[in-house]
Amino acid sequence: MKILSLIAFTSMVLLGISSSAQIASKADQNKLNFIFPKGELGPAENFTGKAWNIGLVENDTVYHTVVGNVYFEPGARSNWHTHPSGQILIITDGEGYHQIKGQPRQILKKGDIVKCPPNVEHWHGASPQTGMLQMYILPKTEKGIVTWLQRVTDEEYSTVNKQF
Amino acid sequence: MKILSLIAFTSMVLLGISSSAQIASKADQNKLNFIFPKGELGPAENFTGKAWNIGLVENDTVYHTVVGNVYFEPGARSNWHTHPSGQILIITDGEGYHQIKGQPRQILKKGDIVKCPPNVEHWHGASPQTGMLQMYILPKTEKGIVTWLQRVTDEEYSTVNKQF
Repeated sequence: MKILSLIAFTSMVLLGISSSAQIASKADQNKLNFIFPKGELGPAENFTGKAWNIGLVENDTVYHTVVGNVYFEPGARSNWHTHPSGQILIITDGEGYHQIKGQPRQILKKGDIVKCPPNVEHWHGASPQTGMLQMYILPKTEKGIVTWLQRVTDEEYSTVNKQF
Repeated sequence: MKILSLIAFTSMVLLGISSSAQIASKADQNKLNFIFPKGELGPAENFTGKAWNIGLVENDTVYHTVVGNVYFEPGARSNWHTHPSGQILIITDGEGYHQIKGQPRQILKKGDIVKCPPNVEHWHGASPQTGMLQMYILPKTEKGIVTWLQRVTDEEYSTVNKQF
């Protein structure tokens, strides 16, 4: 009976955590202006936390340009990665960060534009409190799309003005 | 005295028209979600009505990609024009139109993506009732940016399902 009670109690706690995370996620989505559907959950091997991706322009041989939108839930971020022709980021709502290897972390908000040069390591993600909606443009895709690297550590994610 | 009264009356009518146009413009801006500042008024030789443009990514030799945002006030539209490497349009709010030469006019709304192939004539603009906020991406700018052509006539602007 004690074991059953313990199982019941643990389940209630776990359900409670899950439920409050869902409520927080829903509250964040309600305060942001979504232009596009949320899309698909990014793979856990390339992202910490929940990052949702929707492709808007697929790669082709006419435009050689890929466009998409990512919704980073609060605290979510990409791994470090590079793009062979660089990347342009356009923040459409929320708050987040961008860091280029060897430079301090930048704070991003609605209306900000960020460029990351070709073959330079960077990561991007949401602030801990507020999610971020961000469009991305990958130019000159004939050279490739992305190379995924190591995770962004909690220290890298939360440290201001330090060059990793 | 009669002449003075006439001048006063005409001024009041003109101010009245100007003022109600300004109120309509303000009302349209209030209902749209602006991500970027409105920018500068597009030149009258390339646009009918008021189209405001802000550059977001300037041309360079690294990305070869130009990005910007246009706010078309209700009824405003571009002239016909071409881009040597084509154009990608992303509608972030409002309502408008896009037409590729020889095809019917398309209706555009928030979240829509449009591609116009290289060296193909097209025009874009707002609906008569509601303005349109639209980002544009010009890829492969080493080939050039834009060639401006003739005005979009009122018939072309307002006709549905006719190939101009």
